Amino acid sequence: MNEKDALAVTAPSSNARPLAVVILAAGQGTRMKSGTHKVLHPIAGRPMLLHLLASVADLLPERQVVVVGAGREQVEKAVEGSGVAIAVQEQQLGTGHAVAQAHDALAGFAGDVLILYGDVPLVSGATMKAMLDRLSRGDEPRAVVLGFRPDDAAAYGRIIADGQGIIEKMVEFKDAGEAERAVTLCNSGLMAVRASDLFVLLDQIGNNNAAGEYYLPDIIMLPGANSAVIETEAWEVAGVNSRAELAGVEAVWQDRRRAEAMREGVTLVAPQTVFFAHDTVLGRDVTVEPNVVFGPGVTIADNVVIHAFSHLEGATVASGADIGPYARLRPGADIGPRAKIGNFVEIKKARLDEGAKVNHLSYIGDASVGAAANIGAGTITCNYDGFFKYKTQIGAGAFIGSNSALVAPVTIGDGAIVAAGSVVTKPVPADALCLVRPQQESKPGWAAAFRTRMRERKAKA
Amino acid sequence: MNEKDALAVTAPSSNARPLAVVILAAGQGTRMKSGTHKVLHPIAGRPMLLHLLASVADLLPERQVVVVGAGREQVEKAVEGSGVAIAVQEQQLGTGHAVAQAHDALAGFAGDVLILYGDVPLVSGATMKAMLDRLSRGDEPRAVVLGFRPDDAAAYGRIIADGQGIIEKMVEFKDAGEAERAVTLCNSGLMAVRASDLFVLLDQIGNNNAAGEYYLPDIIMLPGANSAVIETEAWEVAGVNSRAELAGVEAVWQDRRRAEAMREGVTLVAPQTVFFAHDTVLGRDVTVEPNVVFGPGVTIADNVVIHAFSHLEGATVASGADIGPYARLRPGADIGPRAKIGNFVEIKKARLDEGAKVNHLSYIGDASVGAAANIGAGTITCNYDGFFKYKTQIGAGAFIGSNSALVAPVTIGDGAIVAAGSVVTKPVPADALCLVRPQQESKPGWAAAFRTRMRERKAKA
Amino acid sequence: MNEKDALAVTAPSSNARPLAVVILAAGQGTRMKSGTHKVLHPIAGRPMLLHLLASVADLLPERQVVVVGAGREQVEKAVEGSGVAIAVQEQQLGTGHAVAQAHDALAGFAGDVLILYGDVPLVSGATMKAMLDRLSRGDEPRAVVLGFRPDDAAAYGRIIADGQGIIEKMVEFKDAGEAERAVTLCNSGLMAVRASDLFVLLDQIGNNNAAGEYYLPDIIMLPGANSAVIETEAWEVAGVNSRAELAGVEAVWQDRRRAEAMREGVTLVAPQTVFFAHDTVLGRDVTVEPNVVFGPGVTIADNVVIHAFSHLEGATVASGADIGPYARLRPGADIGPRAKIGNFVEIKKARLDEGAKVNHLSYIGDASVGAAANIGAGTITCNYDGFFKYKTQIGAGAFIGSNSALVAPVTIGDGAIVAAGSVVTKPVPADALCLVRPQQESKPGWAAAFRTRMRERKAKA
Repeated sequence: MNEKDALAVTAPSSNARPLAVVILAAGQGTRMKSGTHKVLHPIAGRPMLLHLLASVADLLPERQVVVVGAGREQVEKAVEGSGVAIAVQEQQLGTGHAVAQAHDALAGFAGDVLILYGDVPLVSGATMKAMLDRLSRGDEPRAVVLGFRPDDAAAYGRIIADGQGIIEKMVEFKDAGEAERAVTLCNSGLMAVRASDLFVLLDQIGNNNAAGEYYLPDIIMLPGANSAVIETEAWEVAGVNSRAELAGVEAVWQDRRRAEAMREGVTLVAPQTVFFAHDTVLGRDVTVEPNVVFGPGVTIADNVVIHAFSHLEGATVASGADIGPYARLRPGADIGPRAKIGNFVEIKKARLDEGAKVNHLSYIGDASVGAAANIGAGTITCNYDGFFKYKTQIGAGAFIGSNSALVAPVTIGDGAIVAAGSVVTKPVPADALCLVRPQQESKPGWAAAFRTRMRERKAKA
Repeated sequence: MNEKDALAVTAPSSNARPLAVVILAAGQGTRMKSGTHKVLHPIAGRPMLLHLLASVADLLPERQVVVVGAGREQVEKAVEGSGVAIAVQEQQLGTGHAVAQAHDALAGFAGDVLILYGDVPLVSGATMKAMLDRLSRGDEPRAVVLGFRPDDAAAYGRIIADGQGIIEKMVEFKDAGEAERAVTLCNSGLMAVRASDLFVLLDQIGNNNAAGEYYLPDIIMLPGANSAVIETEAWEVAGVNSRAELAGVEAVWQDRRRAEAMREGVTLVAPQTVFFAHDTVLGRDVTVEPNVVFGPGVTIADNVVIHAFSHLEGATVASGADIGPYARLRPGADIGPRAKIGNFVEIKKARLDEGAKVNHLSYIGDASVGAAANIGAGTITCNYDGFFKYKTQIGAGAFIGSNSALVAPVTIGDGAIVAAGSVVTKPVPADALCLVRPQQESKPGWAAAFRTRMRERKAKA
Repeated sequence: MNEKDALAVTAPSSNARPLAVVILAAGQGTRMKSGTHKVLHPIAGRPMLLHLLASVADLLPERQVVVVGAGREQVEKAVEGSGVAIAVQEQQLGTGHAVAQAHDALAGFAGDVLILYGDVPLVSGATMKAMLDRLSRGDEPRAVVLGFRPDDAAAYGRIIADGQGIIEKMVEFKDAGEAERAVTLCNSGLMAVRASDLFVLLDQIGNNNAAGEYYLPDIIMLPGANSAVIETEAWEVAGVNSRAELAGVEAVWQDRRRAEAMREGVTLVAPQTVFFAHDTVLGRDVTVEPNVVFGPGVTIADNVVIHAFSHLEGATVASGADIGPYARLRPGADIGPRAKIGNFVEIKKARLDEGAKVNHLSYIGDASVGAAANIGAGTITCNYDGFFKYKTQIGAGAFIGSNSALVAPVTIGDGAIVAAGSVVTKPVPADALCLVRPQQESKPGWAAAFRTRMRERKAKA
């Protein structure tokens, strides 16, 4: 489990035996109606598949295999450089067949195999660890199945187990008798199996069913040693087959993250209106007003207030800063202690030192702003010429008058004042006043005459 | 049913027999505490009455009559030019009396009459069609009542019917015995009756009740031929008598529209925070982030991302465009393929060609922006002189420096560059640089001296 | 109860006998994980403790005592100048011990004592009044306890009472038998007791329990006269021990306020997305679109539309005005009849007369704007020089061109026109045109040459 994963309840220690993870991701995802591979749709700003890989990471797997069908290239690109192997299931012949495609990628591997699903993204590292722990217990089950008890067991396959969790029977809903259907323990599909057994068992299952598919759960009922079940909560094994289910899993994730934030000393005035990313970090006594959206990569220190309608991504905010309302912090925004970012302000790749203020209607990009500098309303850093980006440096205690344009590269010295409405293209020395302004002219009576003319024209029109 | 109606589940074919629709809208609406007529309060940005008329439209009614009491002028204005007749119920003498006021408007009409309620706006064209189909079935019922089964039947009138839906009794809750109150099928009030029967039946009902009113449902229990009931879901016949019920019906509408959007391949990260209008059109693989509001008249093509806090109305967005966060598209915004509208940007009556960018803090109104043009932060099109509006034309590949004001009518040629902070009043030729800028002056030490002076003044104050 | 308290259901008349209020606020609040005292965390923009004091106010208490432990200074500061006495409980020895600390502050007081909890903020003045009324009824109970029936009685103490509400037994959950646990009436802890009895009774209770604490409810079971219970709804006595409970109580408050607004004739398109402050005042036929936040001190007249994503605080809006979307009204914003505040506009300490318009991307602070004046997009009032604030006065019918900076103190006369892009530092006479603008220069072919140069540089880079 990724240390930065905000929902990591416990940091499970690494697995005792070597671990390989097989993630099935070959489903068509037809109901998503999307050009994006199903397992790459994001939850909390991170593709589902990467949620799983992050949860797996703390278990230090030796091998990771993703079994894909259509859309292979998208998945390959998403896991590029992560050491994850790709196995291809050319034809959709069932989950058992899908796992069998990992055979070559697991060649020579001795240890435990954890079988996950790319569209079941919320299962935690702690739960995975519990499955592996159960697999290595003294009674040595051949496989460990992850069970759950949904509110409505509906058409899920049922698990009949004894008091020790030893599975007596696993049965598809359609094949289940009345007594079996009354059982509330259902099969999530997730499984841990020893590598030495896995492919041997898969070879033994058939496809003698309506769909002509090879079902992974069938390995449980093969003759031989016992299998065991352990239980988890239903939300953890919720699957995503449609955009509505995607939204449902996102909602579960967000609700848990909100609860965690409040437990840790964050005030959420209206928790349902605050949206976190997978890696949002929040200090103590942070207040988040209604309607705030966190994109990935945000770290907020203690005693920060984030006012309504703010949007933060890739930003760092130091202690005591005051953000928003309507503040947009983009990647590289680095807001110093007690700094203030006000309404309709966009900050990108810019460092603001302690107590600096950008209170209204400004764009500060590719810039550094010194301590206690005051950036007036309507200030724009002109950082782009259509080809390159350039930097603006504003010194400590500088005062930038409203509606100024700072044409980068440009430097405003410490304590300098830029008069309102200036277009600054040359450096301004420390403690100097910069003025870029023509004389004010007045044409008496012009406005009255103009109005008379226009009223006449309007009357004719 | 309007083809553009996003919630149209099926497009019912037109009715076999001539159809007249009577919509009752004479209720006082006292609990709304409003100067606006109750049936003109909007759901999804469209007055309730117009929702009904849109649902009726596909049934190709020959006549449409709205029965009004107080506030007649408002209703007349709302349906102006639509061919809808207005009948006036001077005194509120009950629903039977209200329908009777449509007598003259239906003079000479032979066919079926559908009786709807202006404050029951969600009933679908498909359900109306089902009522009419039932009316023309072989057993020829005299009337067809629309029934529903609410979660809490409470004080609704009950319908006692046989297995074929032939009504044995319709009874007000207060007159119902215990067994009758146990019946869960309730009367929505909506009804289909043959025109040849309707006014004959209405003549026979009395007002021998506590309120001294003539009740439409009383026609069902008059001696003679059988009436039938068909059922629909409770949400479809939810009525609006208060602002809370208005919000409740809006919520039902929005939830259904959100579910439909997701079914069609739209990602709603937080469905509860996205608000659609009655005619919003969304392509496939559109992503809508939290907190987005659609006003009427919006069409979004495939693969568009609409970021958080965006507000769109009367706008068209082409494939691959990127909108927001904090983008406001107003009527006439026409955003080309792969164009980008960024934060705190307002677009009104303006066409942006492919790949054009308006990324920050700008107002672009009454304008055309050529392909790949880049509009800098803080750019304003000055389109109004207090009397007339004028057009700004920006050529392909043009680059408008930040904080510029383009005083319309004005033309910026293809590939031209406008320097930051310019006020452009004259045409800029293609490929030219436009500069409107005084010299930058520097007064060394001025700022330091100013601060000393001000600190002294502050100390004295 | 504060007259401005928007949720005051009834205005209770003042209490017949002298009243003292003791508010317990000595809990550690550890689970809040906060540097702020628990009772100072806000609900609807007002600290919990002040909610209670506002509800108490209409009962005209003679004395008010807050019993504090840690964080005394914060509480003292919060109630400064309100005539509230502070009593200190040095050690946390239970609620009975806490009330005993009010002994000195109540010296010489004869009348009724109402015991409240600083972290139970929603109890209404009407409920408090009902407790006091019960205490003074003919059967003269020695104490009146406020009971409630939660959805899940869980581990609350149970109240066994007869049909007249005379308490037979009050029992902690852990000491309760099966039959007692089946009782659904629970003890909220709130109590009314005669001052003459209170400290006598407190002297008699012991701390013979696991925690070694003195429990206030123990006074009920002391030998002697009867005590009575009256009931209220569970939400009213919901306590706040964590940020999640704080959010829960906020949600209850907001839901009730939303319902009240709708009853009074306000349209909330999406009630769950509108957040009120404790003192928000709304007229009739106000429409509030989704996602609007009200801070304290807002008054809205009839027929105002507040569009989506608006944020108002300390603002007054007159009849028929149109606000937002994305309007931010800050303290001192005083918006006249039929005025219009548009998108990305911030108004602070400014009066706008009838029909004035600030439609786009502006900051108007420390200003007055005359009737029907039109403030162009991107206008900034430069009201601050880093030391003092200055005022901008804009006359009736004036027209401020876009992207102008008005450097205060400055006056724009009635009917004057300021050309786009002007930096106005000197007064503009009525009906004059003000122009502050250099000549427009054009460098033909410069842009094309620049692009060639840059492309070469980019190719090399």
